[in-house]
Amino acid sequence: MVDWDSYRRPAFEKAQQLLRGVAHRTPIMRCRTLSEMAGCDVALKCENLQKVGAFKFRGAYAMIASLTETERSPGVITYSSGNHAQAVALAAKLFGTRAVIVMPEDASGVKLSATRGYGAEILQHGFTPQERQAVATRLADERGLTMVPPYEDPRILLGQGTVFMEILEQEPHSEVVLVPVGGGGLLGGICAAARVFRPQLEIYGVEPEVADDWARSIESGRIVRIATAHTIADGLRSLEPGKTPFPIVKEVVRGILRVSEDQIRRAMLLLLTRAKLVAEPSGAVAVAGALAHSQRFRNRRVVALISGGNVEPSTLTALAPLPSGCPADSSDR
Amino acid sequence: MVDWDSYRRPAFEKAQQLLRGVAHRTPIMRCRTLSEMAGCDVALKCENLQKVGAFKFRGAYAMIASLTETERSPGVITYSSGNHAQAVALAAKLFGTRAVIVMPEDASGVKLSATRGYGAEILQHGFTPQERQAVATRLADERGLTMVPPYEDPRILLGQGTVFMEILEQEPHSEVVLVPVGGGGLLGGICAAARVFRPQLEIYGVEPEVADDWARSIESGRIVRIATAHTIADGLRSLEPGKTPFPIVKEVVRGILRVSEDQIRRAMLLLLTRAKLVAEPSGAVAVAGALAHSQRFRNRRVVALISGGNVEPSTLTALAPLPSGCPADSSDR
Repeated sequence: MVDWDSYRRPAFEKAQQLLRGVAHRTPIMRCRTLSEMAGCDVALKCENLQKVGAFKFRGAYAMIASLTETERSPGVITYSSGNHAQAVALAAKLFGTRAVIVMPEDASGVKLSATRGYGAEILQHGFTPQERQAVATRLADERGLTMVPPYEDPRILLGQGTVFMEILEQEPHSEVVLVPVGGGGLLGGICAAARVFRPQLEIYGVEPEVADDWARSIESGRIVRIATAHTIADGLRSLEPGKTPFPIVKEVVRGILRVSEDQIRRAMLLLLTRAKLVAEPSGAVAVAGALAHSQRFRNRRVVALISGGNVEPSTLTALAPLPSGCPADSSDR
Repeated sequence: MVDWDSYRRPAFEKAQQLLRGVAHRTPIMRCRTLSEMAGCDVALKCENLQKVGAFKFRGAYAMIASLTETERSPGVITYSSGNHAQAVALAAKLFGTRAVIVMPEDASGVKLSATRGYGAEILQHGFTPQERQAVATRLADERGLTMVPPYEDPRILLGQGTVFMEILEQEPHSEVVLVPVGGGGLLGGICAAARVFRPQLEIYGVEPEVADDWARSIESGRIVRIATAHTIADGLRSLEPGKTPFPIVKEVVRGILRVSEDQIRRAMLLLLTRAKLVAEPSGAVAVAGALAHSQRFRNRRVVALISGGNVEPSTLTALAPLPSGCPADSSDR
């Protein structure tokens, strides 16, 4: 059961106000080649150009901003190996409070240094998300820190839902929004916002077919856990939907689209060479979905959400050579 | 001598009106790391996100739009191996008129196919710009086509100058604008616009130190021809300043900054990994200039113009590995 009272218009408007002048109002871009290939009007909502390079900053900042002084001043804690870690670290820094991030023992030096660069204290523990979550929960208790989870909190979802409010302002005539889905914070926030602000707008989640926990769960009507999630899209390696977003998504979403690993790579390359935008693999799945499921959206006005742009250069270089029909030195915006 | 009557306020306003709803109003972006490294507030004006992936579309479209029907209907012609070719091809296509582009015999297949993709007729002739220009001039006469040169026409400069008008609207408090300079169409247009709209705003050109025809020419007060221009910045390989923009730039510009090839590569990589933006080498020189000449701009409000994003993936891949202090999977916007 969803407590819909947590997701009413004033709550979203408050989140938007908290983020005003802090989070970027990210631009909408278009790429003619992409729209022609998809057979529909594709507008790109560029959350890869958000602070910390991903939408995650919205939820982390909105939640930390809405804490009481008593909750915030001792510091915040989270568990993440990716964009959420940096989002919490930066948001905490902006409030002058401490951030503790539990990261895996095998986290890359690059990710550790990026998170540390925002002034966060990093604890490396275990290898699985479950281990990290357990340690973070225990530390929160022991040290009196406030947990800022990646998606299991309505305040996080309200922050992510502000993306939808911006889309409505920037593209008031859009008919479909395609959203990458991993844990479900972004898709859940957008579904909750769509229910309030524009229920007739069609929301779809997009995920790798080799990590299709959401598609299976929505299809069967209950949370299904998958065994593995070996995808290039490192932000979408969830094994099961989050408990907070799942019932919201279940009620609102029109479907979850699957895309192949090759389709994700091609979407990244298309964004890089034609739209001049860096998307991380997780960030490119909505574009991949627009291309792979184009018959479904023929001639419609589609917004594809680019959720993040944090990618290792080595991943970009592995994308070349170009697929056919994708000249390198041109753009058709 | 400059005929300043060609560059008055109504002429710029007309160019802006011609481009309205056709050219993109490209966004301004910021990257915290970049500003911190430069020691000043760096705003990125993203003409790499312009149609055809470069500012060139503004000038080409503005000029073709201001032709009489008699001039336009037989078709237009130009000589270019790069972004101007695509800009003329697309602008002609939008007006339903023919475009003939004279390109070098050794033009890459990728550039040929990109230009042909906009429906232009391509003639390959010679290897030097002089040869191409001679052929194009002769063909224009023979076939009654109208020449749309890369920078030797006030109507081209008026179109490029609209970038400056947008900068004033988007960043009214900016104090310095850094502009890549090759032939001088963009810098000339911006200097002419600055003279009209905000003369106290400081304009600097930026060019590769191994192709410093502008720096030498401005320093000596007359057009100086250099012997070679072996730079990665393929759009800035001019051997001498254009005759139309030179006297305008000479009167307005505060200086021409030189950057090394390595500084250009580092600026490209910084834009890619931190700002999530694809810049071509020529497009990244203004950012390189902000970093290389940071003592000059300490604590000031600087706009760095990213002039284009059309780059071969192989050039991007050659940028890795990362220089130190530039983590890959993060962004500090």
